[in-house]
Amino acid sequence: MLKRTNKSTAHRKFSPSGALVREPASFELSFPNRGTNKQIEEGMLFMPKFSGNGLIPCVTRDVHSGEVLMLGYMNREALSLTIQTGYAHYWSRSRNQLWHKGERSGQSQPVREILIDDDQYCVLLKVHLTSGASCHVGYRSCFFRRLERGDDRTAFRASLSGAQQGVRPLQGIRWAGA
Amino acid sequence: MLKRTNKSTAHRKFSPSGALVREPASFELSFPNRGTNKQIEEGMLFMPKFSGNGLIPCVTRDVHSGEVLMLGYMNREALSLTIQTGYAHYWSRSRNQLWHKGERSGQSQPVREILIDDDQYCVLLKVHLTSGASCHVGYRSCFFRRLERGDDRTAFRASLSGAQQGVRPLQGIRWAGA
Repeated sequence: MLKRTNKSTAHRKFSPSGALVREPASFELSFPNRGTNKQIEEGMLFMPKFSGNGLIPCVTRDVHSGEVLMLGYMNREALSLTIQTGYAHYWSRSRNQLWHKGERSGQSQPVREILIDDDQYCVLLKVHLTSGASCHVGYRSCFFRRLERGDDRTAFRASLSGAQQGVRPLQGIRWAGA
Repeated sequence: MLKRTNKSTAHRKFSPSGALVREPASFELSFPNRGTNKQIEEGMLFMPKFSGNGLIPCVTRDVHSGEVLMLGYMNREALSLTIQTGYAHYWSRSRNQLWHKGERSGQSQPVREILIDDDQYCVLLKVHLTSGASCHVGYRSCFFRRLERGDDRTAFRASLSGAQQGVRPLQGIRWAGA
């Protein structure tokens, strides 16, 4: 089930002097091939779908508060490392490299549960938040702004201090609401 | 801010006899153009990013339990209709058409809050679940299966009855865990 791979260069880093630092080759799991719709949707085998760009989306939530922290993306290596190490790894689309969440920021995400949705197109991680923040802007969740609703501009205002969660009202589009 | 559009054909349907049924043209909001990184990440304007395929991902959670129900996708029309009507609309990638959630299944999702993440690449809806289920397989959440952890095959088993939430263990990949 485990195979050593050296196809990916995502784990390569350069030292400050510019020399290539060769890190240990990563492990990549061999995920089962996709089956029939019934096997995928109701079966008991983990058959994650990596789309054309090799990525699967991943919703990450706080295991304690239930708060949704972020939407990330994983390639096979990132998902393998998450499963094997118990720490969240993603594929950074902006930096185009493997991203061990918290490696630089200290905002690591020890994983408590790994779930998959019905068509196995999306992973859900429940993580323990080790620092006060998960979002690089400084909030606990990346979802720190919400649309205003109707005419009450103050309805969704909330206090905001440091890394504490505050939800700010967004302007530009008014939400009629339900 | 509102413009009537007839560019989209997503709202067109065919009757059983094959005749084109012309439904009222939908409304589409004019979302602001994307700004600088600082405006996008820390500003107060709603500037959702629709990717190359015209879609933005949307995480939907139960406003009461906090449970993550599904990951969907929205085009401009679906997001506009969600904002304007207060009911969740998505773009169905499998059927390639606008999807008013619950229109057929009765599993509609009245929206209580609409949030956006830091880079405005993902929408978060908090919805009130009107029926016992959100997932077409019959579960409350689409994330009804989770990976087993280590050697304890029974650790994550849960009871399962009807539309009630049960989380089933997945086999095939063993999770080392944290």
